[in-house]
Amino acid sequence: MVGIIMGSLSDRSVMQEAADILTELGVAWEMDIVSAHRTPEKMVDYAKSARDRGLKVIIAGAGGAAHLPGMVASLTILPVIGVPVKSSNSIDGWDSVLSILQMPSGVPVATVALNGARNAGILAAQIVGTSDEAVARKLLQYKEELKDKVADMSRQLSATPNP
Amino acid sequence: MVGIIMGSLSDRSVMQEAADILTELGVAWEMDIVSAHRTPEKMVDYAKSARDRGLKVIIAGAGGAAHLPGMVASLTILPVIGVPVKSSNSIDGWDSVLSILQMPSGVPVATVALNGARNAGILAAQIVGTSDEAVARKLLQYKEELKDKVADMSRQLSATPNP
Amino acid sequence: MVGIIMGSLSDRSVMQEAADILTELGVAWEMDIVSAHRTPEKMVDYAKSARDRGLKVIIAGAGGAAHLPGMVASLTILPVIGVPVKSSNSIDGWDSVLSILQMPSGVPVATVALNGARNAGILAAQIVGTSDEAVARKLLQYKEELKDKVADMSRQLSATPNP
Amino acid sequence: MVGIIMGSLSDRSVMQEAADILTELGVAWEMDIVSAHRTPEKMVDYAKSARDRGLKVIIAGAGGAAHLPGMVASLTILPVIGVPVKSSNSIDGWDSVLSILQMPSGVPVATVALNGARNAGILAAQIVGTSDEAVARKLLQYKEELKDKVADMSRQLSATPNP
Amino acid sequence: MVGIIMGSLSDRSVMQEAADILTELGVAWEMDIVSAHRTPEKMVDYAKSARDRGLKVIIAGAGGAAHLPGMVASLTILPVIGVPVKSSNSIDGWDSVLSILQMPSGVPVATVALNGARNAGILAAQIVGTSDEAVARKLLQYKEELKDKVADMSRQLSATPNP
Amino acid sequence: MVGIIMGSLSDRSVMQEAADILTELGVAWEMDIVSAHRTPEKMVDYAKSARDRGLKVIIAGAGGAAHLPGMVASLTILPVIGVPVKSSNSIDGWDSVLSILQMPSGVPVATVALNGARNAGILAAQIVGTSDEAVARKLLQYKEELKDKVADMSRQLSATPNP
Amino acid sequence: MVGIIMGSLSDRSVMQEAADILTELGVAWEMDIVSAHRTPEKMVDYAKSARDRGLKVIIAGAGGAAHLPGMVASLTILPVIGVPVKSSNSIDGWDSVLSILQMPSGVPVATVALNGARNAGILAAQIVGTSDEAVARKLLQYKEELKDKVADMSRQLSATPNP
Amino acid sequence: MVGIIMGSLSDRSVMQEAADILTELGVAWEMDIVSAHRTPEKMVDYAKSARDRGLKVIIAGAGGAAHLPGMVASLTILPVIGVPVKSSNSIDGWDSVLSILQMPSGVPVATVALNGARNAGILAAQIVGTSDEAVARKLLQYKEELKDKVADMSRQLSATPNP
Repeated sequence: MVGIIMGSLSDRSVMQEAADILTELGVAWEMDIVSAHRTPEKMVDYAKSARDRGLKVIIAGAGGAAHLPGMVASLTILPVIGVPVKSSNSIDGWDSVLSILQMPSGVPVATVALNGARNAGILAAQIVGTSDEAVARKLLQYKEELKDKVADMSRQLSATPNP
Repeated sequence: MVGIIMGSLSDRSVMQEAADILTELGVAWEMDIVSAHRTPEKMVDYAKSARDRGLKVIIAGAGGAAHLPGMVASLTILPVIGVPVKSSNSIDGWDSVLSILQMPSGVPVATVALNGARNAGILAAQIVGTSDEAVARKLLQYKEELKDKVADMSRQLSATPNP
Repeated sequence: MVGIIMGSLSDRSVMQEAADILTELGVAWEMDIVSAHRTPEKMVDYAKSARDRGLKVIIAGAGGAAHLPGMVASLTILPVIGVPVKSSNSIDGWDSVLSILQMPSGVPVATVALNGARNAGILAAQIVGTSDEAVARKLLQYKEELKDKVADMSRQLSATPNP
Repeated sequence: MVGIIMGSLSDRSVMQEAADILTELGVAWEMDIVSAHRTPEKMVDYAKSARDRGLKVIIAGAGGAAHLPGMVASLTILPVIGVPVKSSNSIDGWDSVLSILQMPSGVPVATVALNGARNAGILAAQIVGTSDEAVARKLLQYKEELKDKVADMSRQLSATPNP
Repeated sequence: MVGIIMGSLSDRSVMQEAADILTELGVAWEMDIVSAHRTPEKMVDYAKSARDRGLKVIIAGAGGAAHLPGMVASLTILPVIGVPVKSSNSIDGWDSVLSILQMPSGVPVATVALNGARNAGILAAQIVGTSDEAVARKLLQYKEELKDKVADMSRQLSATPNP
Repeated sequence: MVGIIMGSLSDRSVMQEAADILTELGVAWEMDIVSAHRTPEKMVDYAKSARDRGLKVIIAGAGGAAHLPGMVASLTILPVIGVPVKSSNSIDGWDSVLSILQMPSGVPVATVALNGARNAGILAAQIVGTSDEAVARKLLQYKEELKDKVADMSRQLSATPNP
Repeated sequence: MVGIIMGSLSDRSVMQEAADILTELGVAWEMDIVSAHRTPEKMVDYAKSARDRGLKVIIAGAGGAAHLPGMVASLTILPVIGVPVKSSNSIDGWDSVLSILQMPSGVPVATVALNGARNAGILAAQIVGTSDEAVARKLLQYKEELKDKVADMSRQLSATPNP
Repeated sequence: MVGIIMGSLSDRSVMQEAADILTELGVAWEMDIVSAHRTPEKMVDYAKSARDRGLKVIIAGAGGAAHLPGMVASLTILPVIGVPVKSSNSIDGWDSVLSILQMPSGVPVATVALNGARNAGILAAQIVGTSDEAVARKLLQYKEELKDKVADMSRQLSATPNP
């Protein structure tokens, strides 16, 4: 089971992509709104109980001065994947990227690209796949599909050499 | 009383400047090591009890993905002043500046310049000075001293026109 | 009483948020247009008389090479909160952020996030709240409302698991 | 078993920290020099055979236009952790951070902080710990030690209030 | 013959400009979709066979963590021209620029401006023109046309002194 | 007489503001399209003959890798004012700002803000005004008008306290 | 006469270069310490009296949140040249560059390169030279010397083809 | 024959690497000091005569507002390779990178990494190698040596598993 959390409902359009690819890859997930700055106690409870509730990985998305992924990582030994979300009033996304990525020694966050929730879902599945052969097989198949899509685009390109 | 906290003893050389100017301006202070990522529970306790223990302002210094000022601000209604510290492996200080400054709506941190602990101390004194006339008078006197220093430098310059 | 100033009427849409939250938190405010570059004398008068006129905190918003917050801070011992405003022709907001934040030793400006006028208002209330218990109580209540909003969003999310 | 690779022997001083913490956390590792740009075929072989050779996680460190982590991730379904290394002639580390972090949809790299090899090691252990209780216990113990270090620093600080 | 490749069909609107100017300058070209991250084996084959298939120059466009130009350059001795493409979710184009430009010693990529596919085409023609006098003559003529366009604009300006 | 030049007719919408304010301040001007990269010879002629043709100041606007202001400055002893223009495909304007501002020792360019053509015009008038009292008087009057505009906005604000 | 001012004696090592080249080019100068933030009244007096005291140009150097050049420009119609100084705790010089360059419409500052005080001096001389033929001749001669230095370096290079 | 030029003798320590690798790859070269800003006429002559003098490629190195590569490219149809040099007072190298890379449509510069003169030499050889089989063979051999160096480093690493 993968836990997906975000600080605000407005992040959902980005974060839903993580859930969708997890479903596609056969990995169960749950989703909740947990804010480091507005509900710090809920965040502490969520992170501390995550392992006992059977979570294997946590995906946390946040924008601006994004403290949710790092704070959750400080409260659990589960791998935490951070998704920098480009919010309005963000300084081009640099704020969320740097406040998730540049964690101090001792408390890592596995950071993915700006708005990269889909990749966060794949990474979570890869982690699950290190001990779950069924998920691993789905991932191998997914990689093949990536190739097929490129082959398709290649054919489309040949079909319209001069647009 | 002003509380000064930082994530690591290595930040002390920067943060001591806050304490020194507070002493000079007649404001009491206490100092402790509190790490958002390594001691999240201590941080929660510190922030939640701060007002009851008589603190008026909290100064929090941190580097890299600096979550201490923002997390403390989420747990208290006291004004929190954040000092971005330029640590080794920092990306030129941008990481600590942005992860302290770009707080979401609802939870402000009063951010000062990179390594600006002295200014954090002055700002804390200014806040105390809004309701403490003795501190306000010290601040007025301090402003005069700033002018005197420039006058001194001006005289020195005149004394050595061609270095 | 909190003074809210800005360099141009075009900044009002951003800065009004400071006034609105102050009203909500029970703190009186006044608002004026004061430009460091176009009305330097008015700025000097405003800043020098602020304390005598009963202001406790000044909130100053400015964009581009934003000199208003820092210059006002040089002319008063009141805490000055700076709001970097992202104007047209700004270089992504970096110019206003850095010209407000990076004040020299001796003259702090309490900087908030880009366009963070609402947080400037809350910070001003927190400063007032250090010596005004009624405002402090409003702030405690406001913090509870932040939590309630997250709980609401959490319920909404549960209600629509697959958008 | 965790595979640790880097493009050049000059990256070893940074990357050895990953190996050291893995040893401390009871996780086996192997280390090799694999360059995306100078030995592309070796890289392909390394990545394609990694899972069959029993690796669970790959840690790849690289500087400048850092292609090793992303290319390895394209060739395996194992989780790949990328360590941006700040090399000479780097543009402040931005180049390695961005060329590791900003992977396209479909191929994630779990990026850690600039020169954050120690955190890469901890993250690898956390991934292993999702299915290995002995490693999980070591991680819980490691978290306690982080707290103890802060308590130690706190005592040191109290012992020398005025340095 | 110049080979033009890109990671996705969505890059075509940018990359077609390279093809168009090559046609105008009398240089033959071929175009294909080749993704470093989704079709690494196809990329290896493409790059390794390029010289034998008669290509003189390769133009590779990519966005985000752009590995295609650098990886192709690692697999051939042909000059490789890299076009940083500004994709959605890019961090202002910095990611693609830096991951193409900052190649390590030994494996150069001739980088052009963000979205500069037209210039990539001209540069490829200049390379072909070092040993093909017909192409060189076309380039000399193209340079004259650039001047003529400026002269045209100058006349237009004179015609409407006050718009 | 002030010379206003730009590399392309597409820069005119920005650069016309320089001409308009010069007219308002009573300073004569001429305008032409001169491209450093497409008409280098015309640029050399323009710059070398500028002083003999009676120009006092040159205003040069350019975007991207903006070489026009610096190259003109290398070819004349007249003061050259550079206007960084934010063109499409610019990297947020940083490219034009830095390639105009960071001139080597010996060849200054007076750089103004991104798209700051109006300020370039005022600066040119200020330079003319150092030896032309009529222009100086117009500048003093212009400064008064800036104050009046702020007073107007201040009145407007008072008239609508709650928008 | 050119006025050279700076906020602190520590800026003198940079700013003296402006004075030295002015002497070389036959332009009189005066130098003083004037701080926007520590001596705002002195700054106002300096700027307002500058024209009457016979100054033609003002060169102002400042670091960090550099307000001196812009504030002086708001108080005089003389051309003001701003020199961004890279101070300690500066964020790579970006803060001083942006807070000098990005002035709002109506109040230009002629900005030169980071630490470019020598170019500020040359630019001031060029402004003086628009109405002083003796200075113009010195500038023409200076341009010749720049060429001679390159010719010298060219000869040196030929003399040691393989270092 | 490859022409190597730079604006100042101080750039030689960087640019000599281009010459050295060209010698190693069997390509003749010449080197000179040519400054866009101090010797614009020499630059025009150099660029315009380059092709007739038998040059096939020009490598131009420059720092700060680096105009040499782009201006030379505007004056010749030869491929021009630009080397951004990180000079003192550079803003972290961003200035030279952007002022070389971001050339306008019509005039490309083949940009290599910051201080990447060695790669500029290799790229020049690759261009020569498109029509010179002897150079192509040297390049193939050079690629093999790159692999051998990695194999050597790999052996060294195995020999000292725990440093």
